[in-house]
Amino acid sequence: VSAGPVISFLSDYGLADGFVGVCHGVIARGCPEARVIDLSHGIASHDVRAGALVLARALAFLPMGVHLADVTDGVGGIRGPRRAVAITCGDGQRLVGPDNGLLWPAMQAAGGVVAAVDLAGSPLALAPVSATFPGRDLLAPVAAGLAGGLALERVGHPIDASSVQTLALPESGLDLDGGGLVAHVLSVDRFGNLELDATPAQLTALGLQVGDEVTLTVDEHAAPTRVRWGRTFADVGAGELVLFEDPQRQLALAVNRASAAARLGLGVDDTVRVSGP
Amino acid sequence: VSAGPVISFLSDYGLADGFVGVCHGVIARGCPEARVIDLSHGIASHDVRAGALVLARALAFLPMGVHLADVTDGVGGIRGPRRAVAITCGDGQRLVGPDNGLLWPAMQAAGGVVAAVDLAGSPLALAPVSATFPGRDLLAPVAAGLAGGLALERVGHPIDASSVQTLALPESGLDLDGGGLVAHVLSVDRFGNLELDATPAQLTALGLQVGDEVTLTVDEHAAPTRVRWGRTFADVGAGELVLFEDPQRQLALAVNRASAAARLGLGVDDTVRVSGP
Amino acid sequence: VSAGPVISFLSDYGLADGFVGVCHGVIARGCPEARVIDLSHGIASHDVRAGALVLARALAFLPMGVHLADVTDGVGGIRGPRRAVAITCGDGQRLVGPDNGLLWPAMQAAGGVVAAVDLAGSPLALAPVSATFPGRDLLAPVAAGLAGGLALERVGHPIDASSVQTLALPESGLDLDGGGLVAHVLSVDRFGNLELDATPAQLTALGLQVGDEVTLTVDEHAAPTRVRWGRTFADVGAGELVLFEDPQRQLALAVNRASAAARLGLGVDDTVRVSGP
Repeated sequence: VSAGPVISFLSDYGLADGFVGVCHGVIARGCPEARVIDLSHGIASHDVRAGALVLARALAFLPMGVHLADVTDGVGGIRGPRRAVAITCGDGQRLVGPDNGLLWPAMQAAGGVVAAVDLAGSPLALAPVSATFPGRDLLAPVAAGLAGGLALERVGHPIDASSVQTLALPESGLDLDGGGLVAHVLSVDRFGNLELDATPAQLTALGLQVGDEVTLTVDEHAAPTRVRWGRTFADVGAGELVLFEDPQRQLALAVNRASAAARLGLGVDDTVRVSGP
Repeated sequence: VSAGPVISFLSDYGLADGFVGVCHGVIARGCPEARVIDLSHGIASHDVRAGALVLARALAFLPMGVHLADVTDGVGGIRGPRRAVAITCGDGQRLVGPDNGLLWPAMQAAGGVVAAVDLAGSPLALAPVSATFPGRDLLAPVAAGLAGGLALERVGHPIDASSVQTLALPESGLDLDGGGLVAHVLSVDRFGNLELDATPAQLTALGLQVGDEVTLTVDEHAAPTRVRWGRTFADVGAGELVLFEDPQRQLALAVNRASAAARLGLGVDDTVRVSGP
Repeated sequence: VSAGPVISFLSDYGLADGFVGVCHGVIARGCPEARVIDLSHGIASHDVRAGALVLARALAFLPMGVHLADVTDGVGGIRGPRRAVAITCGDGQRLVGPDNGLLWPAMQAAGGVVAAVDLAGSPLALAPVSATFPGRDLLAPVAAGLAGGLALERVGHPIDASSVQTLALPESGLDLDGGGLVAHVLSVDRFGNLELDATPAQLTALGLQVGDEVTLTVDEHAAPTRVRWGRTFADVGAGELVLFEDPQRQLALAVNRASAAARLGLGVDDTVRVSGP
């Protein structure tokens, strides 16, 4: 038994309508030996940033291959949809998707852009390309072609690597006094857990360690809160707030069996300050 | 690397209960080299028509293979469940499922019925066949057997091709004046978008083109509405109605970021009239 | 075409966050030729019993292979998460998961425990093992290693088979008079159907047969109810209660097109008595 090439697949299509299955079909026709790993199709509609983060964090755990992602930003207008691109990264991973920032964090994680092509007029496209479903008609056949061995320049026309769309993400850092960490909410999951743009190493650098109580300031006009830096939810009682390293190895805020987003009144991009007791 | 036979799989089982996974297991035991493409398992319970449409439209994008579908119509009574069938189509595709109309549009798309068998008493069935889960005990092992190379007549007993259950679908056409298109709602998706039984070519034949405003009449006692014929949702502002070609290449009505079904008060099989400005 | 080893995969991760896809990635890196069958990832969070039952009942329909399951019980505390184990069963099936009872019914169905190892310090673990996602960092690479041919003692250190965590389940039996069956609700599905810890054979032993009306006693202080023992939901009218053999070959109570749990006011572990008319 030998193993075929791998295509990972992430989208906001959902699983109700058969869109994901149809793309699998297109891939199976274009590259019968490819194996498809569904990363997630439950990204919230138009949430390019959430899709970008899931893809970038998964990449380190995926085999070398082609990574197909499609989350549209809902901005197209009569100019038509954004261009679609295929990209070769520094470490050899290849990415296929819309050029709307979705691929950016994954590119950074994979060694940056080495080469990029615009897929407009791709010889692999199923004609006519549906304006409402380019995933099926353009992205999937291109991913299959690349998995089957086609060189990047065979699936589109070369573009300047520096023209690929970036994605702005917040950036955590020390506060003015240097005694606290100013971080931001990167994403909120379905349980109301808040992922921060900060890592445990940043707290360790402040002299804190797992098990400590830390001071959380959500609003400079309100009283700060004491929070346990735990290993998991289970380190605090039901209803209590905890700071912990989440599966993505980022710091996150959660309430055991409840929503930290609701408790703290925080959403994406909001700022928090974490400091010693 | 060579590729095994393909089985596509569509159902209304949902993904919560392990039913889909168990069928994958039965297939893997019956035909270890088969590759299964999950088309959708999110068809609404008993919605035979929705399942039939998803299957039929997907078929053109799927490899040649065996297509397993199971959506029951909720009508069985003490006579027991409807018979199950396996079918060879004119283009070589093979279909396996209940004989309740679910397979009919796919059959039509695949060149009609060439041969059909009733699966009652199939030598491939896992005995005893559960009255409440024939998908696992009958349909899945038959699909695996066909994928593994068995001839149709080895999995059931031949029946008259003309006895296979049809599915009644609405049919669009010109109105009495010949100046407008009378269409019907084929399906409503989870966003409230309304798919019509009409294609862009039918509007073009009326002298209309993408970008035009058209007149939409939903109820002959109410005032008609002006609607943009756009390429995508994004061609109109938030909250505005748009007529566009959907991923299935059918005409559809949507409201950008809202529900066209709610706005227009329309559901499956309701009639609309589209005419020039 | 030959077929690779099979890994089945069950969890309570859900499909929204990419956790399942990442585990597929880890498996594909560890054992590229493995084929993964997703059994279900929709087990309710922390519902170890529901996961255990889905896994145990699926096992008879799955190929010989490695069965990866992860449903945490939400009990960990500062002692850290429960130990993870890999197990070889009497029939050759191998199981990988947390040692919290999740694997117990599957083990019993597969001939009992022949050998078991604790995965702490496994040479296959991705270091550091995330406290909040051991599925990715420990269970998935171990499952891949076993599928790839590693012996059990290569993935962890041996433990006493008798130390593996059991799972307490209710047990049905005859009532004191010997004229009725006392059963319990094993699980409630999303439709409100109630699965009992009893089989049709137990009713047959009481002289009852499919088609009979039986007497259902839910609460000894309330009047008993007459219920049809049918083959499927469709044997009774909409809104009527029916006793039938469910897909798991267990007796179940359902209301055609409504919730038996709501109608009868019953939940997991509640007791019912079934007797002749």
